[in-house]
Amino acid sequence: MNLLKKCIKLPKISNKGSVIVLSAPSGTGKTTVCKYLLKNMPNLAFSVSYTTRAKRPGEINGIDYFFVDTKTFLKMIKQKKFVEWACVYNNYYGTPKKELEKIINSGEDVLLDIDVQGGKNIRKFFPQGIYIFLLPPSWSALKKRLINRGKDSISQINIRLKNAEKELHYIKYYDYLVVNDNLNQTFKIIESIIVAEKHKRSRFT
Amino acid sequence: MNLLKKCIKLPKISNKGSVIVLSAPSGTGKTTVCKYLLKNMPNLAFSVSYTTRAKRPGEINGIDYFFVDTKTFLKMIKQKKFVEWACVYNNYYGTPKKELEKIINSGEDVLLDIDVQGGKNIRKFFPQGIYIFLLPPSWSALKKRLINRGKDSISQINIRLKNAEKELHYIKYYDYLVVNDNLNQTFKIIESIIVAEKHKRSRFT
Repeated sequence: MNLLKKCIKLPKISNKGSVIVLSAPSGTGKTTVCKYLLKNMPNLAFSVSYTTRAKRPGEINGIDYFFVDTKTFLKMIKQKKFVEWACVYNNYYGTPKKELEKIINSGEDVLLDIDVQGGKNIRKFFPQGIYIFLLPPSWSALKKRLINRGKDSISQINIRLKNAEKELHYIKYYDYLVVNDNLNQTFKIIESIIVAEKHKRSRFT
Repeated sequence: MNLLKKCIKLPKISNKGSVIVLSAPSGTGKTTVCKYLLKNMPNLAFSVSYTTRAKRPGEINGIDYFFVDTKTFLKMIKQKKFVEWACVYNNYYGTPKKELEKIINSGEDVLLDIDVQGGKNIRKFFPQGIYIFLLPPSWSALKKRLINRGKDSISQINIRLKNAEKELHYIKYYDYLVVNDNLNQTFKIIESIIVAEKHKRSRFT
């Protein structure tokens, strides 16, 4: 008796990148986590957003953000150049659609550091994206962080706390929750989430 | 101005364990992967199945399987003691419900090494379980493995290949696909899947 010659085609993992959305109430450490991920994950690119907010010391145009004036930003909205845009604390923020598609088609993952409203909107464009909501270890830890970073006055901190409470209502639009207690641990969890998502059956061809 | 005193309750990660189901066409290396996972994941327990098949050299009753006769097995089916049971190559295999619940309630994860029919059935009892389908790197690699392990005759290998083809139709009942090319890599991927699943929003309370 001979061995069967028939050959079966097996499912193959996709070589397309993923859109990874990371959102969090302010003070949760989102910016630090994003920087750490970008530094330590070789396949991860950052999508540079557009903003109308003032450049902070050390920030570079085209690296941290594309800094544009409100008139230019509103024109780009009309031209539907953003997958999401939002007005936060009187400043506009927007994510350019073309750039995202270019990155994921090249096989790289792209990290989006955006507010909760943006996360909700972007899901319509990228339903297969990876939506992660970062949580502070506790409410009192969040308060402490906002005080300790020394960026804001008490009244500004109170506004951020009120906003954080509202932002928590958007948790339902996210697939994963990660408590940001320890940067290294947070990194490992997010790394695991990305690896796991690549192995979802729905991503195989 | 004073800091707001209101304290918000944040979502907490569940301390309940997960049911992890690992299935694969024979020759994919499932048993080796399971042994490796059990050895290297501290929070992972193994659910000992019942079987009517003959004990192989080196196997221990209560460790590898509970070896029972067909009469006893059929009685246990009637008593609904299994979350799944199946007859494969003329032998019965069954997973006891009580033991699974005991393990996950204690906070440990439990690994189930079961055939594709079992995987489909167990989902009804544990919809929040983690369902992983292991794939060989290619069809020719599967053939080679079946030949090289030297357990079966050519006619038995042909039966296994025909079954493997049928088993692939069950992929749709699994959430994750892992190509078992390298044991260490397979381990890392499965570890990541488990970590990611723990951080799914639906598992938070």
